[in-house]
Amino acid sequence: MIQRLRQYLPILDWGRRYDKAALTNDSVAAVIVTIMLIPQSLAYALLAGLPPEAGIYASIVPILLYAVFGTSNALAVGPVAVVSLLTASAVGQVAEQGTAGYAVAALTLAFLSGGFLLILGIFRLGFIANFLSHPVIAGFITASGILIATSQLKHILGIEAHGHTLPEMIWSLATHLNQTSLATLLIGITATGFLFWVRKGLKPRLLALGLKPMLADILTKAGPVAAVFATTLVTWGLSLEARGVAIVGDVPQSLPPLTLPGLSPDLIGALLVPAILISVIGFVESISVAQTLAAKKRQRIDPDQELIGLGAANLGAAFTGGYPVTGGFARSVVNFDAGAATPAAGAFTAAGLAIAAVALTPLVYFLPKTTLAATIIVAVLSLVDLTILKKTWTYSRQDFAAVAATIVLTLTFGVEIGVASGVILSLFLHLYKTTKPHVAEVGLLPGTQHFRNILRHRVECCPSLVTLRVDENLYFVNARFLEDMVMARVAEDTHLKNVVLMFSAVNAVDYSALETLEEINTRLTELGIGLHLSEVKGPVMDRLKGTHFIDHLNGQVFLSQYDAHVALARKPAPMAAQ
Amino acid sequence: MIQRLRQYLPILDWGRRYDKAALTNDSVAAVIVTIMLIPQSLAYALLAGLPPEAGIYASIVPILLYAVFGTSNALAVGPVAVVSLLTASAVGQVAEQGTAGYAVAALTLAFLSGGFLLILGIFRLGFIANFLSHPVIAGFITASGILIATSQLKHILGIEAHGHTLPEMIWSLATHLNQTSLATLLIGITATGFLFWVRKGLKPRLLALGLKPMLADILTKAGPVAAVFATTLVTWGLSLEARGVAIVGDVPQSLPPLTLPGLSPDLIGALLVPAILISVIGFVESISVAQTLAAKKRQRIDPDQELIGLGAANLGAAFTGGYPVTGGFARSVVNFDAGAATPAAGAFTAAGLAIAAVALTPLVYFLPKTTLAATIIVAVLSLVDLTILKKTWTYSRQDFAAVAATIVLTLTFGVEIGVASGVILSLFLHLYKTTKPHVAEVGLLPGTQHFRNILRHRVECCPSLVTLRVDENLYFVNARFLEDMVMARVAEDTHLKNVVLMFSAVNAVDYSALETLEEINTRLTELGIGLHLSEVKGPVMDRLKGTHFIDHLNGQVFLSQYDAHVALARKPAPMAAQ
Repeated sequence: MIQRLRQYLPILDWGRRYDKAALTNDSVAAVIVTIMLIPQSLAYALLAGLPPEAGIYASIVPILLYAVFGTSNALAVGPVAVVSLLTASAVGQVAEQGTAGYAVAALTLAFLSGGFLLILGIFRLGFIANFLSHPVIAGFITASGILIATSQLKHILGIEAHGHTLPEMIWSLATHLNQTSLATLLIGITATGFLFWVRKGLKPRLLALGLKPMLADILTKAGPVAAVFATTLVTWGLSLEARGVAIVGDVPQSLPPLTLPGLSPDLIGALLVPAILISVIGFVESISVAQTLAAKKRQRIDPDQELIGLGAANLGAAFTGGYPVTGGFARSVVNFDAGAATPAAGAFTAAGLAIAAVALTPLVYFLPKTTLAATIIVAVLSLVDLTILKKTWTYSRQDFAAVAATIVLTLTFGVEIGVASGVILSLFLHLYKTTKPHVAEVGLLPGTQHFRNILRHRVECCPSLVTLRVDENLYFVNARFLEDMVMARVAEDTHLKNVVLMFSAVNAVDYSALETLEEINTRLTELGIGLHLSEVKGPVMDRLKGTHFIDHLNGQVFLSQYDAHVALARKPAPMAAQ
Repeated sequence: MIQRLRQYLPILDWGRRYDKAALTNDSVAAVIVTIMLIPQSLAYALLAGLPPEAGIYASIVPILLYAVFGTSNALAVGPVAVVSLLTASAVGQVAEQGTAGYAVAALTLAFLSGGFLLILGIFRLGFIANFLSHPVIAGFITASGILIATSQLKHILGIEAHGHTLPEMIWSLATHLNQTSLATLLIGITATGFLFWVRKGLKPRLLALGLKPMLADILTKAGPVAAVFATTLVTWGLSLEARGVAIVGDVPQSLPPLTLPGLSPDLIGALLVPAILISVIGFVESISVAQTLAAKKRQRIDPDQELIGLGAANLGAAFTGGYPVTGGFARSVVNFDAGAATPAAGAFTAAGLAIAAVALTPLVYFLPKTTLAATIIVAVLSLVDLTILKKTWTYSRQDFAAVAATIVLTLTFGVEIGVASGVILSLFLHLYKTTKPHVAEVGLLPGTQHFRNILRHRVECCPSLVTLRVDENLYFVNARFLEDMVMARVAEDTHLKNVVLMFSAVNAVDYSALETLEEINTRLTELGIGLHLSEVKGPVMDRLKGTHFIDHLNGQVFLSQYDAHVALARKPAPMAAQ
């Protein structure tokens, strides 16, 4: 019972062993992450189309709940770029940005997503995330990065623009370009340039100045805070608000409020599919980060418990004025590098953000939105990695097709269609490849008991015997192919007396394939040709045993192909009969 | 060029060799099939919700076009039960039965279906039919048989009733039961009883009387004609029409008219998906029949050319007042048994039906619809085969689930949802099984060079070496599983020095799995454990060669597992290190 409770509440486990050293490490990490998260949370809320405080709220209660239920010591849960984009795309379909309905729909999205993750976790269905292949994920993240960066250009230019796809955005930007605010653009470009320089140029310079790597790293990570600070000061000092620079404005000074997601059937119906998509993508991002970081310290992550942790975090977001959250890459890496030892670091971060929400929000009144856009652009462009196209092209055209389709469709038709098409295409290509499996005719490698393809190796054969190694599971999509292939091979060779199907690579035989095997046996029997099997694996033989096919098989089932060879090839009788 | 033309026009091939013997055989077969088809065509048109002549028209031009383009010598193309049901279901969603729009929509359905089949044929995409597994087809046919038989009960009872699913039909029948026409019911029950008796009891009795099997067979097949004849006479003689017996009534005396399918975007949009479904199901039924019959005479069917033949037939139906057609089981078997030697038999049948359409239609004025319903019920109940449930249950729960779901969903939600769910479920179950593949730890069978599962066989092992035979293709859905499994096995055994992944059953490694293999190599290298591969198949090795993974592999790639065993297990060094 205790064991079971501990499985669902990892905090009971690490909480008992919590000591002063862990406390120190966790506190330091929390301070660093908090400083980084303040501008980031505001920026991602902007990306999601929500008021800035929603980003802060989404980082407080969710992070606490994850600390109770999650299994990663370093994962930092909160708003992330891709999920914010998905939120904007989904909620934008049911409500207008800036309305109360929009914020409520975002809560509903978090609620549905949390519920779905929780269900997956309780029923231990985490494997469904595996249906997203690496190429599809890579393509999707790259395309999302491009979409997100493009979506922020309107803030940099200080114009109104809309759209959820690249062509829509570009068209909208182009037609509103004449409204560009020069002051906004100046701040935006300066901030973007500064942040790129901080990212690429600052750290080596600081190290060259003799700073410790840890300190250099912290200063680098504080770049966005510096940009926020400087542009806020300038905007306030020069009254740039009056010159058309859009600012964040009033942000309520408050702890996360208690909120209720909208639960009308219409709203749920409209948001259910996007919520599932957000859950799966968020889970994949989070679990990848968590496993990468855990592996570095030889710790283990339990994917099903992670689902529960993320589910709880999203439900928390739904009831405290947030929107869908997940474990973020950037914030988790910072947390890890800063020395976070347990999930308590997350709890301390939540406390830091709560203080910020209560005390610091007036300070961001004059913060220009263009600065937040600059932080987003610099952050997401690091996600864009087009080399995956080249890598997959070299390795496999099939994987390349999945990446390319995901990128192109995400950019052209939006994130939902893009990722769904990527998944369906990669599954279809996988299935398609099994429709016409590779079949090797094999012979004995001289001096061994090993059998290989006669076209690739110098092997011994025997004219009255043909051994076909079927390199695929036999199931309905290739059942007919198997029959055609065997019968075609038999038709071209009248000396044949025996056919061996070598099943070393056959991991399953379904009912359709079983019927086909029966048919092959019947047809070969009519032709006076023996049908044999060799190297049938245990699980496959368990199933075949006692079927009509094995009972009526005109030949034998050999344990090894060598046994089959010895029994059939050395028989002089069929040779003499030629 | 001629060769290519002959490929697309098989008539050029068999037409040149046509002789008097073939002419005789074909003519006899045509007479028998024509007699059988007249009531059947009327009945299936009724089932499709179309005027009776549509069934006749759908059997004339399509059969001629199939004779030109098709490759089967015995296949008889025309309206069939399942496709008629699908037509009623699809067209019923866009138009009211009995309206002109309904007939036009049926033409459109045939047009779209023909176009789709033609495209599949030209691009040689016939393999998509393989995505329907045998259990799904069996379940679908059985459920369709039940649905069709139930749908005809309203004619037997002489009442109005509607619905495309079993619950709808039963409810509709039950609520209209009080309107039952006794005269209609009496004819219907008598005809049904007679036809069942003809089917089951007549042939043995005729054979006992000393008739030749061939003649007994023809007489049995003429049962529906006798029923039609007798009930028409009775209805006419007793003026039963006035007592509420619904009759076929006026059927135009005409050759097939020239018709144009409706091509409005709305109509096409609404019928495209059903048309694709009808095409695929019709193709599967047709190709199964054609291949079964061809195998009996050791002839070959070209599936892609069959698509062209069926596509042409459906386009023919669309322009001559018909509706979707395919190669039917019953009519083709009769054609084959009657001795059809070439597709010319089909052409003669078309001529016979054309004569019937011009000369005989007045004779069916008094034919009761209840008789046609009886012929349908008796014909389709032979399709119902619930033993498939038991057969698949014994062999594989996965196949059972596919059959059961297809039957239940087809009956409950209609044919389209039923078959689509069956296909998706069977693909999902297949993919699901590959998410957590069987992995066997193997050892050497003493006295051989053959390696088998240590849990099933008495084999030799070596404590410093573990060989894992992965029984599945490695791709994105199981890439993470592979890593977890290898690392878990390594974690439980600190004596390990070498891990061999035996790839005899790995037929493909996609990009996601490649990245996972790289990750495993990295992690094992950190632990000081060697990673080796053995028995990598040619096509897999071709792809792996030159990748980062093979370049950085800390161990070797062995041609055979025995080589790996000799090289690694016999090494004394790692043993001593324990």
